[in-house]
Amino acid sequence: MGFNIAKTNKKRVVIIGGGFGGLKLANKLRGSNFQVVLIDKNNFHQFPPLLYQVASSGLEPGSIIFPFRKIFQKQKDFYFRMAEVKAVIAERNLIETSIGELTYDYLVIASGTITNFFGNKTIEEKALPMKTIQEALELRNTLLSNFEKATICTDPEERQALMNVVIVGGGATGVEVSGVLAEMKKFVMPKDYPDLKPSDMNIYLIEGSPKLLGVMSPEASANAEKFLKEMGVNIILNKRVIDYQDGKVILDDNSTITTKTLVWVSGVTATHFDHIDKELLNRGGRITVNEFNQMQGKTNVFAIGDVCFQTEEEYPNGHPQVAQVAIQQGNLLAENLKQLEAGKKLKPFHYVNLGTLATVGRNKAVADLKKLKLQGFIAWMVWMLVHLRSILGIKNKLMVLIEWVWSYFTYDQSIRLIIYIPKRKKDE
Amino acid sequence: MGFNIAKTNKKRVVIIGGGFGGLKLANKLRGSNFQVVLIDKNNFHQFPPLLYQVASSGLEPGSIIFPFRKIFQKQKDFYFRMAEVKAVIAERNLIETSIGELTYDYLVIASGTITNFFGNKTIEEKALPMKTIQEALELRNTLLSNFEKATICTDPEERQALMNVVIVGGGATGVEVSGVLAEMKKFVMPKDYPDLKPSDMNIYLIEGSPKLLGVMSPEASANAEKFLKEMGVNIILNKRVIDYQDGKVILDDNSTITTKTLVWVSGVTATHFDHIDKELLNRGGRITVNEFNQMQGKTNVFAIGDVCFQTEEEYPNGHPQVAQVAIQQGNLLAENLKQLEAGKKLKPFHYVNLGTLATVGRNKAVADLKKLKLQGFIAWMVWMLVHLRSILGIKNKLMVLIEWVWSYFTYDQSIRLIIYIPKRKKDE
Repeated sequence: MGFNIAKTNKKRVVIIGGGFGGLKLANKLRGSNFQVVLIDKNNFHQFPPLLYQVASSGLEPGSIIFPFRKIFQKQKDFYFRMAEVKAVIAERNLIETSIGELTYDYLVIASGTITNFFGNKTIEEKALPMKTIQEALELRNTLLSNFEKATICTDPEERQALMNVVIVGGGATGVEVSGVLAEMKKFVMPKDYPDLKPSDMNIYLIEGSPKLLGVMSPEASANAEKFLKEMGVNIILNKRVIDYQDGKVILDDNSTITTKTLVWVSGVTATHFDHIDKELLNRGGRITVNEFNQMQGKTNVFAIGDVCFQTEEEYPNGHPQVAQVAIQQGNLLAENLKQLEAGKKLKPFHYVNLGTLATVGRNKAVADLKKLKLQGFIAWMVWMLVHLRSILGIKNKLMVLIEWVWSYFTYDQSIRLIIYIPKRKKDE
Repeated sequence: MGFNIAKTNKKRVVIIGGGFGGLKLANKLRGSNFQVVLIDKNNFHQFPPLLYQVASSGLEPGSIIFPFRKIFQKQKDFYFRMAEVKAVIAERNLIETSIGELTYDYLVIASGTITNFFGNKTIEEKALPMKTIQEALELRNTLLSNFEKATICTDPEERQALMNVVIVGGGATGVEVSGVLAEMKKFVMPKDYPDLKPSDMNIYLIEGSPKLLGVMSPEASANAEKFLKEMGVNIILNKRVIDYQDGKVILDDNSTITTKTLVWVSGVTATHFDHIDKELLNRGGRITVNEFNQMQGKTNVFAIGDVCFQTEEEYPNGHPQVAQVAIQQGNLLAENLKQLEAGKKLKPFHYVNLGTLATVGRNKAVADLKKLKLQGFIAWMVWMLVHLRSILGIKNKLMVLIEWVWSYFTYDQSIRLIIYIPKRKKDE
């Protein structure tokens, strides 16, 4: 077992992670004079902004995740490898992975973040995060299974626990999940579960800070809160979840909420690699980089996207961990790598904020654009257009559009399927 | 925990299994004077004829499986329960299940068949059957994972094992899987896996009898064989697989084929319930029923579809285990249950064979219709129309059609995603 990649006379760029940043970079290096190796632990690129719609039975996984090999079909001197990277040995220009070692001329760390459980083991074991397609499908399975269990449950207290959903984290994902579940409660529950009382389904959204959608404008936050309240979501601000014991979420004021469905979208921490000096990391484990995204002391090791920490005058505490930053950094880095090879001067990164969007429900979204703050139906249309545009491939765009139009008119997300696919050990 | 279903003054019909037969019956009992309880271990109806397209990355699971609760939305005095039935205690009009006991006035066993591994434990553990959506997705995962492993494999023998696919069973599923894999080899491999040699991918189809598609006409069998040979599939007839050891399939002439992907579609056996007398079972474990689908000695216990054994003059060895028999039996049984309640005479079942179809690849299928045998493009069009018609729901029809048209023109099945979703123990 090994990478099986012959060294050519081209310089080798190794990209760790095919998220927004890594994918943009790899795409921009098409036809360049580099050998490109893209490493990801999945065989597909994910589109996280729509994961919540997979979790809520609105979209098929295949509409929002895209196989790397298909994206890079026929590309010359490009290699995709499915592997987990364990260590970066920068002094030897080498990485250690689950499938062996690989040397590089240039290394780009674009591995993003993982869910932060803040060291709480019970929450890590039992809560449902939602950063990957696997996790989104697991949330779908759990939600639907718990409703099935509720129909056959004879103990009222347990039934209540099965029907309560607690979402921790009031960022975009938390707001979107709460909204879509509120719609499920209103439109799907009465039709699908005649033997359950929809009013028994309580949705709680808990946020530690004083407002939802922390990165957005006060107007957007207030509107999202108003929308969610109208939809019947119980919003709890200024409180943190400190534990989950015996089926009860415990808040920092010692109040509790019983639930069997605890959704954890409360924070992230950067992916970790062995052998990178701790002094090179900033808060949240992010790798400190200079204005060219170079890791300190290394001209051939870069970090882009959520995993890196880069400051600008406007962003003294680092950029927000959003797709746009990663995409723009990937874009510039492709150029800079070519500049570097040509012995030319590198361009410093400058983040252009194109705006922030979050959707709450049908006809309800909030948008902070450059000079404009939108809410309601118009913001919702903008949200859909922007996201549809970002979906890779015409067929996938079409599929997502059909699902959206369909569920808009039928008030229904219809992919309510419970499917577990365990991994068997077959070839050992 | 329990079924939580109040007994009303209506008679209760309990249906075990929501396959073709059970679904048809439940549908036909809409608006009748029965309380209907449908029990299935999944929360969705499956459409097995297209499972192989899910396995080969051509369709999304949601296009060919349909949530029961959605199908029966708003239906009065109808109950869906997700459970596994363990025993049928006919003398007490009672079934035992994973969620408790349930009494019935009428019981309909429509639970179908499971894969028959003919007692071979190694094959049961390591081979990939394909009777359920979970198994189809597992086959997709395994195929794609093995190709990924092949790209990083440095041992030529092991790489060959990763690229060989052995399909055991030359029925419709075996023929269809072989065909679609041959197309993947021809159209997808060269583009997606530039570092593998497509010619290294060998597809073997093994059948114990002298011909493929045993239930079809000699013409259809010969044509399917011809098509598959043209597509490069290695067809091995008259040989049975007797074991799978150390990554080698062992045939009854002691020849072996190395493979890490062993697809097992070689036979079925009826689902089993405790407490049903063995004397009531016929070959393949099928429950013997009379012309009204009544189990011997019981006027209120019925079996329909693949799980039952019913003879007619034309079918002295029982009906073929195909969808049409189950659908027609479900249809008639709905009528007969109403007749029974009204104290009227029951109608005996008579199977009307509408024809048999199997597809081999693009533009290639075989069809035995009433007075007509078709092959090639026309048979293929018939196959697509018949199957598209059977897909539940307009949206799903549209989705399947788009996927088909798309892959027809792009020579591509694009949902090549490796996704495992293990079940976590969260609420214990």
